[in-house]
Amino acid sequence: MDTTKKTIILFSGDLDKALAAFIIANGAAAMGDDVTMFFTFWGLNVLRKSVAPPHKKSFLQGMFGGMMPKGPGKLGLSKMNFAGVGPKLMRRVMRQQNVTSLEELIATAREQGIKMIACKMSMDVLGLSEDELIDGLDYVGVATYLGEADEAGVNLFI
Amino acid sequence: MDTTKKTIILFSGDLDKALAAFIIANGAAAMGDDVTMFFTFWGLNVLRKSVAPPHKKSFLQGMFGGMMPKGPGKLGLSKMNFAGVGPKLMRRVMRQQNVTSLEELIATAREQGIKMIACKMSMDVLGLSEDELIDGLDYVGVATYLGEADEAGVNLFI
Amino acid sequence: MDTTKKTIILFSGDLDKALAAFIIANGAAAMGDDVTMFFTFWGLNVLRKSVAPPHKKSFLQGMFGGMMPKGPGKLGLSKMNFAGVGPKLMRRVMRQQNVTSLEELIATAREQGIKMIACKMSMDVLGLSEDELIDGLDYVGVATYLGEADEAGVNLFI
Repeated sequence: MDTTKKTIILFSGDLDKALAAFIIANGAAAMGDDVTMFFTFWGLNVLRKSVAPPHKKSFLQGMFGGMMPKGPGKLGLSKMNFAGVGPKLMRRVMRQQNVTSLEELIATAREQGIKMIACKMSMDVLGLSEDELIDGLDYVGVATYLGEADEAGVNLFI
Repeated sequence: MDTTKKTIILFSGDLDKALAAFIIANGAAAMGDDVTMFFTFWGLNVLRKSVAPPHKKSFLQGMFGGMMPKGPGKLGLSKMNFAGVGPKLMRRVMRQQNVTSLEELIATAREQGIKMIACKMSMDVLGLSEDELIDGLDYVGVATYLGEADEAGVNLFI
Repeated sequence: MDTTKKTIILFSGDLDKALAAFIIANGAAAMGDDVTMFFTFWGLNVLRKSVAPPHKKSFLQGMFGGMMPKGPGKLGLSKMNFAGVGPKLMRRVMRQQNVTSLEELIATAREQGIKMIACKMSMDVLGLSEDELIDGLDYVGVATYLGEADEAGVNLFI
């Protein structure tokens, strides 16, 4: 086991939880750690492009895909969402306080070489295709996550 | 510490989070790991029988017990629940995509010898008795969980 | 790595999740473990004083601060909250069953020497100042958490 390796499962698609996940991941990478983020279920929405090429889906998949947020700019809050007013307020306060935005945190994560992997099975269930997600991801299953977690000293589910 | 041992606390009673917990647990067990799942608070609802023998409860316990979902077939989603339409959609897409259902995942977990333990204190608070839950569980407290977690390399709270 | 060291991030401000976090933390401390709790985002509300000195905030910060629960007595439930009736029921059942209240669990955590640290960045975003939180906390950033987690055998995100 390697204490400098860390994994984070991002299951949640909430802005606040995504912020927490990327702040921890970037902090660890800045300290020289090897970090893997595994995006599953609603967490995949964090990786969606705001505009994606049209894509053939089953009717049911289309329902999930059409209603879920498209990328970091559209995420809600896990608490005090108030039909989308909460996230707007939080983003504004973050700017006032010079706190890095989620979009910048994602860009930093990629610059720092954080491995970002998307759960293939969740993508099938939610009807998300690879060209709807940002580039440079790996598409894998739970066995890959487990292999990474076995080598890591810190493993979080967010 | 044993990197092939894993523990998962399932606190949530949402269908999507229960699916994530059992997919990780079964994946690890299939790779030969020793897995313990600890069910607490709303996570206990995943283990409820759909029909249980009548059971004497205090009025307050009866209120929780009566309103909480009875087993995997009645769970909601943590997001996009839409008064129960969301879980139905997700189950239907999962069948279309040949993804294993929660009921099958629970059966597989038991076949693979995953240790499933229920938090006694949460059962008291939520007014759940042993005969309302599926058979073959251990009924323990937090000390048992902590003992297992100390020996494990991966410990998740879901 | 030290298997007797444990860290818990409390991100959630829900009564049920706070109970789970403090029950695990106190259980571990009672077994002689060295425990650090890191409070971030909504989890900071668990540490709020019910009455705090007036404090100058920006308009936006004041909105979050004014609407968020002030301390353990005001927290909601993650499920079955029913506009505040759920937490009242849960507290009453807990008394009936002689289960320790959140307020007592927090007091025990302090008596047992559990290190409680508050995330400075989240405090800025949510507009919380040190004198609005209970005494005896450390105010730190993510690097401190990561340093503690690297030394711990069990790390949970709640």
